[in-house]
Amino acid sequence: MASEIKNLENLCIHTITTKPLKFEVACAKYAALGIKGISIWRDAVDGLDHRSVVSCLKENDLTPVSYVRGGFFPAFEKRKRDSAIKDNILMLREAAAMEIPMLVLVCGAEPRQSLQQSRDQIRQGIETILPKARELNVKLAIEPLHPMYADTRSAITSLEQANAMAEYFGDDFLGIAVDVYHLWFDGDLENQIKRCGSNHNLFAYHICDWNVPTVDMLLDRGVMGEGCIPLKQIRGWMEEAGFRGFHEVEIFSTRFWEGDQDNFLDKIVNAYRKHS
Amino acid sequence: MASEIKNLENLCIHTITTKPLKFEVACAKYAALGIKGISIWRDAVDGLDHRSVVSCLKENDLTPVSYVRGGFFPAFEKRKRDSAIKDNILMLREAAAMEIPMLVLVCGAEPRQSLQQSRDQIRQGIETILPKARELNVKLAIEPLHPMYADTRSAITSLEQANAMAEYFGDDFLGIAVDVYHLWFDGDLENQIKRCGSNHNLFAYHICDWNVPTVDMLLDRGVMGEGCIPLKQIRGWMEEAGFRGFHEVEIFSTRFWEGDQDNFLDKIVNAYRKHS
Repeated sequence: MASEIKNLENLCIHTITTKPLKFEVACAKYAALGIKGISIWRDAVDGLDHRSVVSCLKENDLTPVSYVRGGFFPAFEKRKRDSAIKDNILMLREAAAMEIPMLVLVCGAEPRQSLQQSRDQIRQGIETILPKARELNVKLAIEPLHPMYADTRSAITSLEQANAMAEYFGDDFLGIAVDVYHLWFDGDLENQIKRCGSNHNLFAYHICDWNVPTVDMLLDRGVMGEGCIPLKQIRGWMEEAGFRGFHEVEIFSTRFWEGDQDNFLDKIVNAYRKHS
Repeated sequence: MASEIKNLENLCIHTITTKPLKFEVACAKYAALGIKGISIWRDAVDGLDHRSVVSCLKENDLTPVSYVRGGFFPAFEKRKRDSAIKDNILMLREAAAMEIPMLVLVCGAEPRQSLQQSRDQIRQGIETILPKARELNVKLAIEPLHPMYADTRSAITSLEQANAMAEYFGDDFLGIAVDVYHLWFDGDLENQIKRCGSNHNLFAYHICDWNVPTVDMLLDRGVMGEGCIPLKQIRGWMEEAGFRGFHEVEIFSTRFWEGDQDNFLDKIVNAYRKHS
């Protein structure tokens, strides 16, 4: 079973979670609540000077965890695949400049070709950017997505497939982001987390909840405890597999984005203590 | 690869596909197009005399394929589980009275308990109704559902899990309905179809397509060829695994239900010939 959550040392928030807040405001609010980690979505720092981002993080004693999100390698046209690789390398440079140690890969899928072809293009994309990741000291984390996103967002739809991809490379700079939203139902999840840990590939852990009912396929994630994901059980498996990193709250929610962000953050912190 | 589709001998339509049509009208329209099979949703024949249903099928030379849908075994309260079993037995009697040879099981899930607990209750439910299925000569087909329905509709979210459940019983009266909508993305699908066939558990094959984008989690299925499901490849696997039954078109679609049903049926027949 999962260990008791005694403090907020491992709590991290993705900036997308509080999408309406400007970056500096989000940092100040997270810090005021005692949150220690932040994962930064590209849009949140668009147009900001990288040094000012680093300063803002230091002033608020926030540890940057992940830069989100690279990937989207598959495309029907070679021109588009090349362009995706260029953009991933640019994101690696941005992450390095902001001292963010990891880039999350939402790997992508192209509905006009087979999932296997998309996975081949993902492998080629990762192969191409890995040397740059190593050079810049920014790790890559493959995030397997829920199968309902297999058409356009990710041909990697299970932890098993992500494990196989990471093991194919066997590289210290390539691992996996386990997001409960995408994987909670998988009957093989405990085993695959164990496998991931034993190969030193457990790079990140994302949490939220699955609302019952879910009214939107993308923008209706719940706060921990609101839905049906067995969060403590999955965290227990992560801990048993050796994971000691941040617990990253990543919630896309039209409902919460429309509401007061201070209330929302309070709710997240309470839910984190009680239900994650 | 899949064999060429030369005629409509194996085409079957689920009544829910043309939801706005009354049962007798649906039967007449299917027959006029040369469609040979019909799968009957319970709501379509609600209130009709069973003998009149049988007559209507015979008059239109339609073969009844499946009665849809039993299951929904898991519940938090024993009273509700007992009630689900009673209702399944009633559906078996209805199927027998209408000379429908198979009941499809959408197995159910209860978000307040673990998926494993729900699967245990599904196994108990099947165990309880199997003798009645045999007595009434109505087969049971477990339909694994897409993981996006794991919260309330089915704790069986993969063909692997359905195979394991069917093999646990090893009963001629229990098999599996393979629906491309729920399983198309599964990297292990070919193997699992092979396994299902070799255990004589391939009872039914449901087709439609996955729209890109999909705007509703339940009611936005596409007609074959509109989306990204590799239909011919999957049918090829079904045929290689020995399946020779009907190809059942099951489409839930607000968009098509709002339109002209004759045009919709023409579209289905053309799409069946070209894209399935």
